[in-house]
Amino acid sequence: MPSLKPATRDQLMKVSTATLCTALFKRGLSHQFIQDVRPLNPNLPNMVGEAFTLRYMPAREDLNTIEVFKNREHPQRKAVEECPPGAVFVIDSRKDARAASAGGILVSRLMKRGVAGIVSDGGFRDSPDMAKMAFPVYHQRPAAPTNLTVHQAIDINVPIGCGDAPVFPGDVVVGDGEGVVVIPAHLADEVAAEAVEMTAFEDFVQEKVMEGRSILGLYPPTDEQSRIDFAAWRQASGR
Amino acid sequence: MPSLKPATRDQLMKVSTATLCTALFKRGLSHQFIQDVRPLNPNLPNMVGEAFTLRYMPAREDLNTIEVFKNREHPQRKAVEECPPGAVFVIDSRKDARAASAGGILVSRLMKRGVAGIVSDGGFRDSPDMAKMAFPVYHQRPAAPTNLTVHQAIDINVPIGCGDAPVFPGDVVVGDGEGVVVIPAHLADEVAAEAVEMTAFEDFVQEKVMEGRSILGLYPPTDEQSRIDFAAWRQASGR
Amino acid sequence: MPSLKPATRDQLMKVSTATLCTALFKRGLSHQFIQDVRPLNPNLPNMVGEAFTLRYMPAREDLNTIEVFKNREHPQRKAVEECPPGAVFVIDSRKDARAASAGGILVSRLMKRGVAGIVSDGGFRDSPDMAKMAFPVYHQRPAAPTNLTVHQAIDINVPIGCGDAPVFPGDVVVGDGEGVVVIPAHLADEVAAEAVEMTAFEDFVQEKVMEGRSILGLYPPTDEQSRIDFAAWRQASGR
Amino acid sequence: MPSLKPATRDQLMKVSTATLCTALFKRGLSHQFIQDVRPLNPNLPNMVGEAFTLRYMPAREDLNTIEVFKNREHPQRKAVEECPPGAVFVIDSRKDARAASAGGILVSRLMKRGVAGIVSDGGFRDSPDMAKMAFPVYHQRPAAPTNLTVHQAIDINVPIGCGDAPVFPGDVVVGDGEGVVVIPAHLADEVAAEAVEMTAFEDFVQEKVMEGRSILGLYPPTDEQSRIDFAAWRQASGR
Amino acid sequence: MPSLKPATRDQLMKVSTATLCTALFKRGLSHQFIQDVRPLNPNLPNMVGEAFTLRYMPAREDLNTIEVFKNREHPQRKAVEECPPGAVFVIDSRKDARAASAGGILVSRLMKRGVAGIVSDGGFRDSPDMAKMAFPVYHQRPAAPTNLTVHQAIDINVPIGCGDAPVFPGDVVVGDGEGVVVIPAHLADEVAAEAVEMTAFEDFVQEKVMEGRSILGLYPPTDEQSRIDFAAWRQASGR
Amino acid sequence: MPSLKPATRDQLMKVSTATLCTALFKRGLSHQFIQDVRPLNPNLPNMVGEAFTLRYMPAREDLNTIEVFKNREHPQRKAVEECPPGAVFVIDSRKDARAASAGGILVSRLMKRGVAGIVSDGGFRDSPDMAKMAFPVYHQRPAAPTNLTVHQAIDINVPIGCGDAPVFPGDVVVGDGEGVVVIPAHLADEVAAEAVEMTAFEDFVQEKVMEGRSILGLYPPTDEQSRIDFAAWRQASGR
Repeated sequence: MPSLKPATRDQLMKVSTATLCTALFKRGLSHQFIQDVRPLNPNLPNMVGEAFTLRYMPAREDLNTIEVFKNREHPQRKAVEECPPGAVFVIDSRKDARAASAGGILVSRLMKRGVAGIVSDGGFRDSPDMAKMAFPVYHQRPAAPTNLTVHQAIDINVPIGCGDAPVFPGDVVVGDGEGVVVIPAHLADEVAAEAVEMTAFEDFVQEKVMEGRSILGLYPPTDEQSRIDFAAWRQASGR
Repeated sequence: MPSLKPATRDQLMKVSTATLCTALFKRGLSHQFIQDVRPLNPNLPNMVGEAFTLRYMPAREDLNTIEVFKNREHPQRKAVEECPPGAVFVIDSRKDARAASAGGILVSRLMKRGVAGIVSDGGFRDSPDMAKMAFPVYHQRPAAPTNLTVHQAIDINVPIGCGDAPVFPGDVVVGDGEGVVVIPAHLADEVAAEAVEMTAFEDFVQEKVMEGRSILGLYPPTDEQSRIDFAAWRQASGR
Repeated sequence: MPSLKPATRDQLMKVSTATLCTALFKRGLSHQFIQDVRPLNPNLPNMVGEAFTLRYMPAREDLNTIEVFKNREHPQRKAVEECPPGAVFVIDSRKDARAASAGGILVSRLMKRGVAGIVSDGGFRDSPDMAKMAFPVYHQRPAAPTNLTVHQAIDINVPIGCGDAPVFPGDVVVGDGEGVVVIPAHLADEVAAEAVEMTAFEDFVQEKVMEGRSILGLYPPTDEQSRIDFAAWRQASGR
Repeated sequence: MPSLKPATRDQLMKVSTATLCTALFKRGLSHQFIQDVRPLNPNLPNMVGEAFTLRYMPAREDLNTIEVFKNREHPQRKAVEECPPGAVFVIDSRKDARAASAGGILVSRLMKRGVAGIVSDGGFRDSPDMAKMAFPVYHQRPAAPTNLTVHQAIDINVPIGCGDAPVFPGDVVVGDGEGVVVIPAHLADEVAAEAVEMTAFEDFVQEKVMEGRSILGLYPPTDEQSRIDFAAWRQASGR
Repeated sequence: MPSLKPATRDQLMKVSTATLCTALFKRGLSHQFIQDVRPLNPNLPNMVGEAFTLRYMPAREDLNTIEVFKNREHPQRKAVEECPPGAVFVIDSRKDARAASAGGILVSRLMKRGVAGIVSDGGFRDSPDMAKMAFPVYHQRPAAPTNLTVHQAIDINVPIGCGDAPVFPGDVVVGDGEGVVVIPAHLADEVAAEAVEMTAFEDFVQEKVMEGRSILGLYPPTDEQSRIDFAAWRQASGR
Repeated sequence: MPSLKPATRDQLMKVSTATLCTALFKRGLSHQFIQDVRPLNPNLPNMVGEAFTLRYMPAREDLNTIEVFKNREHPQRKAVEECPPGAVFVIDSRKDARAASAGGILVSRLMKRGVAGIVSDGGFRDSPDMAKMAFPVYHQRPAAPTNLTVHQAIDINVPIGCGDAPVFPGDVVVGDGEGVVVIPAHLADEVAAEAVEMTAFEDFVQEKVMEGRSILGLYPPTDEQSRIDFAAWRQASGR
């Protein structure tokens, strides 16, 4: 698995999940957006990192008493201590937000350990605190009940589903104010590079639209003049 | 189809969707509120305009490659350029927010063209940007994947469903911080006028409630005294 | 039914619904969190009070014309005037947010009467106004259509379901920025006391985690040193 | 409350829920069909009787141990023994089929007691046995877990919702192979009579359609000839 | 639009929707199966025909009184009389089965007119009668309430969605005991031919599996011997 | 992990999933019933066996072309060949029935290999054929699209969720006409034995109820006489 290059990470910090989804769609990948998750704090820079995953299964009551967390090998706690700095911690909560995927203390620990962010297709508890942290947290909706009520952590860093998207360990995960997209590891460099180009063009189009130009012939640039104008704009704006 | 009178528009700028729903309910219309949509920017004045509609159907993959937008006659792009200034652009996305109904550039173009606002029962992409625009945008939830992933634009300005509400072209669409209501065109004037009256009474009641009065006999004003007090209040407040 | 003690109320003002859910889970109660409701104004102190309930059933059209509110004995209006000061008004709306559980005037009346807050597993109308009030209101999503469209108030202060949680009159209801939890009346004192203790420990852990300590051995405190440190912290911090 | 007349019951044995829904729709009642329930045994005569209701709320674990059924006053067991012969037992299970509304023994007891049938918007256990009984049982889907897992019986013979339909004790409940409809008590006689008339006309139309006639002018009979033919058909067929 | 050839129709009578879905998947078409519909009578031959469509929108109460069917131009009634013999009548009911898409009389008329079958992603009324007809009817679940309660017929023979599948007039619709698949018109011949070939191979494999052979190397036939055996089987069985 | 004893298997062949759910409920296990699956052929003896599991994740398009099945190591095909005779093959399809969990050929192979049955919380294709097989198959609803459309097989014999129930390899899975229950391996013997006892009592009660006895004092047997009668019944019936 190729590891995420610093230059690629930098590029991904500056593009949107919407643009990335289009670049993936051009490559035949339609299901890489994690459905129905939102940022607790929408005012942060992009979240970018390789996926480190945790898989939950439905909790069986006898195996999920409050005592289980005394076990240092409990997969949830172990995963929090093992997730590499710079990675994004992605949890398969089976889209079930009736109980928490994790809470404020574990998320704080991840932040302190240099992890890039956390995503669950379920819900987090202590969400009001998390909303004030400078750490990207994405979930479906708040969930105060303790994790054990509904979930049992069972596997660390295996391929999972999250919000109907496939997530393989090492895939590059990008989050912005809109949501989270999963880029297959082998495509990260080329998708990032293309997204930077696309973003330049979209910024140009946005500027022209705000000046009053029609989208016909401009977006996409089927008019020759649009392409000429864009070339000039790039030169002028240094992009 | 009667066109929306400026006076009616002015009245509708000052009343709530809740009040309008009650006025419609009195006329036997119970399903005119677009279910499960919310404003991206909740701090704007009301959105008021006649409905201009776009209908989406499920995308068939071979008909929805990224190339289709090169066609100037593509209904989505065509509709954006044809929607009359002052109208509200309403999209039937079949309540499916897995992919975007539209994105920031098209919505900016609508804004520049003088359109009054946009509503989809699916989701928009580039939603963080839209949330900062002084343009009313209502949807279910953010959706970064490109439109073509799930939707194919198929019909312009036909009767549609949006969030389980029936929407006919020319119906008067009103949005506030709560959501969006659809007023049948032929009722717009009388419903607007009645809503203004109802709002005066509700403001009076709210004032009295905040002064500590019971709602019994006041709301509705089954006590003669309530009606006397309201008459006095109207005179005093010039409403 | 034991009534809520002022000291217990004070304790419950200072703990989170997440902590309370864990204290209840330890006692075998897993379904006390009201699912899928959120505060309209997330910046208020906790909502604490005994449950006073209102039950809605599906509206039958002939029994729910706009005229019914002229009846002073209508259960919705009666309940608003009878809910005791300090109580939390909890509505069983069958998780149906297609029409309003109540609106701004009734909620204002509850606030003026000294009620502690209001919860519905449906939706409220006039929600933008409520979001500005210093009064805790929790619901699923905004709903402009009048109550009568979908709901008929039928019973006051009976046991109900709200967001899949069982609610008995007199249960102690606590809301924070995350959501709402229902504490069985007979457990309120002990759960409140335990939650205060748990909160002290969680605050200690959070502080240590922010200083860089691992969660292993600390949370839960399986290391002897963690317990020693906590004892010292309590002494130092006066908690 | 008028009680169900034998002649009305006889009429309702011979008409369909579809026809009854139309008769109710003409009277402004649109929500009387219990949504998403089906007969376990679709080969029985119609189920007709006055509603006797049981209300469930979400189960709180400490109040719903297996021991509770030792209490002869437990509302579920009490209701089974008190439901009048000829009545239809209708359960508000909050559309939750994760645990049983009741099982084979209770349903057998109802059958033996002369009850007309049973309906739940949740699920029954022992459903394969019930499917062989000559007793009408309607539910959403089979549910093997014991009632107490999810439900607590709380009220006998109060107004309830069942499958989004309002059900008042004494309403006349009719089930056929399609589903279940609830006729407000005061309308039972007139709706039954009208449905008998409508059924005669529908049978006539069906016969004509099977002979090859177009529905235009026939259904509804806007052609004078259709009305003449129907009059002749009634005379000939003695209906 | 190419019309359905008799030979193609014959081929499609003998293959399954499962096989057709795979043939479409190989061509990049993944969403052609109409989700969540089932046959009322599962014991009929395949349904095969070109799609003739009817689009429903949400009903507005004032436009959908029982009187509207007196209008011979009402789209629902008109469509029933205009649907070509041999076609499949496909209704876009927005997956809403709370009221009927149509009932027994209209469906009987379609049958008499030589239509090949009917599909709705909502529900039909008079479903027990339809279940006995030798006419293919597919829907989500029974729905006794009259059409007008929830639906308004608005467009005849336009592109629609049905059960999340795109349906264009003239597409070839095939139903079996499992469900319904939509074949784009231009692919009908090649997909039918390929499905016949695939069916021969699947029948061979099924026979071998029932004789005890492993699927490895057989399905798909990566072992040379499997291909040899299949060739021999074809010769022997005359397929 | 204890393996399933023949005597236990025999006992489990004769008891219902409803009875087993109650025995598990008494031990604090409430979530062992697989929600929302049904037998394709409801007329078979019980399905009993140890769980052998297969986990699906959401399909990524580039990894799930039709070519992948040529790989003999593909987990779906491998699992079919490796599942032990006598085991129940349980698939975690994430409750997604938009595409098939498997089809007729693979299921036939399992049957021929002596597997006890198959369960998916998604859907199977070729379901009409399966419904005629003397092999227990449980799913949510038919799904003609090929597996690869939505699912990617990723793990063999790991702990999974199926219909919201936790399933560990080796758990004892029992299916009847109602659905499927999962018994933790270490409880299988005692739960089976208790269920046999409970079944005897339930059969006795059912007989008495059919003779006209009240359930009060009988079910549960709080009357001394009920216990005496049951003892006599056991003796008489040899159970």
